[in-house]
Amino acid sequence: MTLNTTGRTVIFMVATPRSLDTRTRLLEAGLVCFSARGFHGTGIQEIVAAAGIPKGSFYNHYPSKEDFGAAIIRHYGEAFLRQWGADLEGAEGPSPLATLRQSYEFLIDAHEGCQPKVGCLLGNLAAEIGGSSPACQAALASVIAVWRDRFTGYLRRGQALGEVRTDVEAEALAAFFWCAWEGSLLAMKIQGSTEPVRQCLAFLFNDVFPPRG
Amino acid sequence: MTLNTTGRTVIFMVATPRSLDTRTRLLEAGLVCFSARGFHGTGIQEIVAAAGIPKGSFYNHYPSKEDFGAAIIRHYGEAFLRQWGADLEGAEGPSPLATLRQSYEFLIDAHEGCQPKVGCLLGNLAAEIGGSSPACQAALASVIAVWRDRFTGYLRRGQALGEVRTDVEAEALAAFFWCAWEGSLLAMKIQGSTEPVRQCLAFLFNDVFPPRG
Repeated sequence: MTLNTTGRTVIFMVATPRSLDTRTRLLEAGLVCFSARGFHGTGIQEIVAAAGIPKGSFYNHYPSKEDFGAAIIRHYGEAFLRQWGADLEGAEGPSPLATLRQSYEFLIDAHEGCQPKVGCLLGNLAAEIGGSSPACQAALASVIAVWRDRFTGYLRRGQALGEVRTDVEAEALAAFFWCAWEGSLLAMKIQGSTEPVRQCLAFLFNDVFPPRG
Repeated sequence: MTLNTTGRTVIFMVATPRSLDTRTRLLEAGLVCFSARGFHGTGIQEIVAAAGIPKGSFYNHYPSKEDFGAAIIRHYGEAFLRQWGADLEGAEGPSPLATLRQSYEFLIDAHEGCQPKVGCLLGNLAAEIGGSSPACQAALASVIAVWRDRFTGYLRRGQALGEVRTDVEAEALAAFFWCAWEGSLLAMKIQGSTEPVRQCLAFLFNDVFPPRG
């Protein structure tokens, strides 16, 4: 697996220097392991080994692997939201819709540079444990709520400017976007190509979001 | 976990009687285990125990767990396509679009009756191993190709009747549907509710597929 540390958007991170505190080292190691082998495919032994800490320390920080999974989701979510915020700022222009689209083009470029295709850890963990772990469900829902509010804000500004349709609530459009985007990342993993993600994004921004002619 | 054996559409199946041949017993047991705990979360020991066969027999049928994963994808895919075909026939009417929609309403009903929300095994395994296992990628791609051809056929007939837009290729609409549908099943798992799937389906059939007014 190629560790993508230079992409504009966090897909996953490398285990980091020992100078970081134990909790952060565990989180960074967990991100790498969960991205590569998922929740069930990763043992606690593997995480502590990657983090370079004794196994007992794990349980000082997290009562269970499930709690750790929820912490990983929040950690990934925060890193994603921080990077996406920077991408949005970098792409900021007179058109909120164009800004939003550009931020997702950056994200596709990051997926393009990632081999094999890891996809989105939120979607991956939703698929693997989203139906069975209440702690992870709650963590996923809270990260996605922050994402949705920000995405919705851009769509609302686009609505005010007449570049986004107003016959559907901006929040409903954002929720629909999440589904299509995450599904397209699954298609990307199956095809080993970002092509389905690019097609999906183009359709959403060219066809689904604009007002009807 | 509630085993849903009566739903119109296969979400997962129960381990079946000993009268079945070994290969089928392995596949049925694998379906249950993979649906509940995913690929990495399921051990071969667990599968053979659920199937009631000696461990050595597993390797007589499948050289590796990855090959077994690919066989599970094909087995689930065949069962899904068979049941979906029956649902389509049951819903068959003058409108191909209404028939298609009805078949997916049946599917949502099956997810509704399933607790916890397992979702779609194709999407789940795509998320978990779709990026890393060539054998599973190939199996997923082949099942989805059959699904897409059938779905596209209904859309084409809808296009001929003027109830589906013709400014986008039917095949591209089907590919987009797959993404949105699978993503909405991830949202279902996170929210523990079929609500996002219902909203997604309504938007696709009311808004995305029909011709522009």
